[in-house]
Amino acid sequence: MTPPADRTGAGPGRPPGARRADQARRVADVLRQHALSGGYRDGRLPDEATLIRDFGASRNAVRAALALLAAEGLVERRRGVGTVVVGRRHSHPLDRLTGLAETLGDAGEVRNEVRVAEVIAAPAAIAARLGDPVLHLERLRHLAGRPLSLDSSYLAADVGRQLLARDLAGRDVFGLIEEITGQPLGAAEVTVAPAVADADTAALLAVPAGAPLFAIERFSRLADGRPVDLEYLRVRGDRTTLSATLHR
Amino acid sequence: MTPPADRTGAGPGRPPGARRADQARRVADVLRQHALSGGYRDGRLPDEATLIRDFGASRNAVRAALALLAAEGLVERRRGVGTVVVGRRHSHPLDRLTGLAETLGDAGEVRNEVRVAEVIAAPAAIAARLGDPVLHLERLRHLAGRPLSLDSSYLAADVGRQLLARDLAGRDVFGLIEEITGQPLGAAEVTVAPAVADADTAALLAVPAGAPLFAIERFSRLADGRPVDLEYLRVRGDRTTLSATLHR
Repeated sequence: MTPPADRTGAGPGRPPGARRADQARRVADVLRQHALSGGYRDGRLPDEATLIRDFGASRNAVRAALALLAAEGLVERRRGVGTVVVGRRHSHPLDRLTGLAETLGDAGEVRNEVRVAEVIAAPAAIAARLGDPVLHLERLRHLAGRPLSLDSSYLAADVGRQLLARDLAGRDVFGLIEEITGQPLGAAEVTVAPAVADADTAALLAVPAGAPLFAIERFSRLADGRPVDLEYLRVRGDRTTLSATLHR
Repeated sequence: MTPPADRTGAGPGRPPGARRADQARRVADVLRQHALSGGYRDGRLPDEATLIRDFGASRNAVRAALALLAAEGLVERRRGVGTVVVGRRHSHPLDRLTGLAETLGDAGEVRNEVRVAEVIAAPAAIAARLGDPVLHLERLRHLAGRPLSLDSSYLAADVGRQLLARDLAGRDVFGLIEEITGQPLGAAEVTVAPAVADADTAALLAVPAGAPLFAIERFSRLADGRPVDLEYLRVRGDRTTLSATLHR
């Protein structure tokens, strides 16, 4: 075993405040998870003195941790009340292929602002997967009256053309595809990356520029194996998590 | 069906340049996926004129798309050569519970800088899951000589104390837990969120402040159901994606 060079996290050459930043991050990690999992039953975090004692952290580190959580929109500090949990994140399970309304419909109404719905000549990288032309569909999706995700989808033309006559403002595309084709979807290859909101995307999703987003690519096939839907999704990170139970 | 109010994406009340930003985002989405999936065999993107034609986008939109990808570290524009793919993201499958070295060991050596390894009084939210005290272990993990993730873990004390004598610099904790306990891990609850790097985390991970990160929580149990390991991971988004095949 190589003994750790430094057990305090201070480290050589790190800037002043690094130790406090380390402590703040660690405290914020634990508080965030506990808050999001409903661990604070009355919706209030313990007071500063309790947190300082509980974590063995400095007052400045605890304050910095609470500031991190406030910047994420998870908590608000209210005079005379304390630190209150105000944010909530909807958990989107990663164990099955589902659309937004199927997954989060219990959390509120899903409404879609259709920004683009037109048959276009497929760019080469799209044509290689879905043929040419394709339907390009872009929807800004709202959950419970607030923007949640910006979905840009390319669909095989025969299915896409029939989608144009359907309720794109109110329905998941997955269900519509299944109705149109008369067969269930099969499987999708999903790739998830973190991203930050550029100014334009931020304005559409009603978050600050630089806010954390999921960037999700999803390539779905029908049950018979035919490629049908290639999607690029940007989902607000302050409103959503992805969850899975993984087995060894 | 409600007809789309606007099929161009311009939209009422949007700022000047919004249409270009929309186009740039759409072009960047397709190019990013094609580049990361190895679609450009010689590692070069098509030239501007080709992209303009292929996407039916304006020159300014294509340039803005390439600038987005350059800012992500995915491509570099080289005089006389064109736009070259320089970034690569390691895909971490979400279908099985694995450690970093198990998953990405083929991509290079995994080395861990042990920043903290000490038995501490467990904060209340940790004690509720793992008992009290716990081992707090924090490691900055490098893949192929470059920082990849910052992992802060809390381990049940009996297992954690034995971990202190093991090769924490060279090994995945999962394998060490299994050796110590003589049983395999069972399942883990995993929650994934996007995050942005604060200044301190950015310095540790060698990315710019504000860069996109995965924030992953993972709560693992032994095969007998006993909770053993609660982790908070921050993983560089410019080097990693999560992937899954989802079935309907």
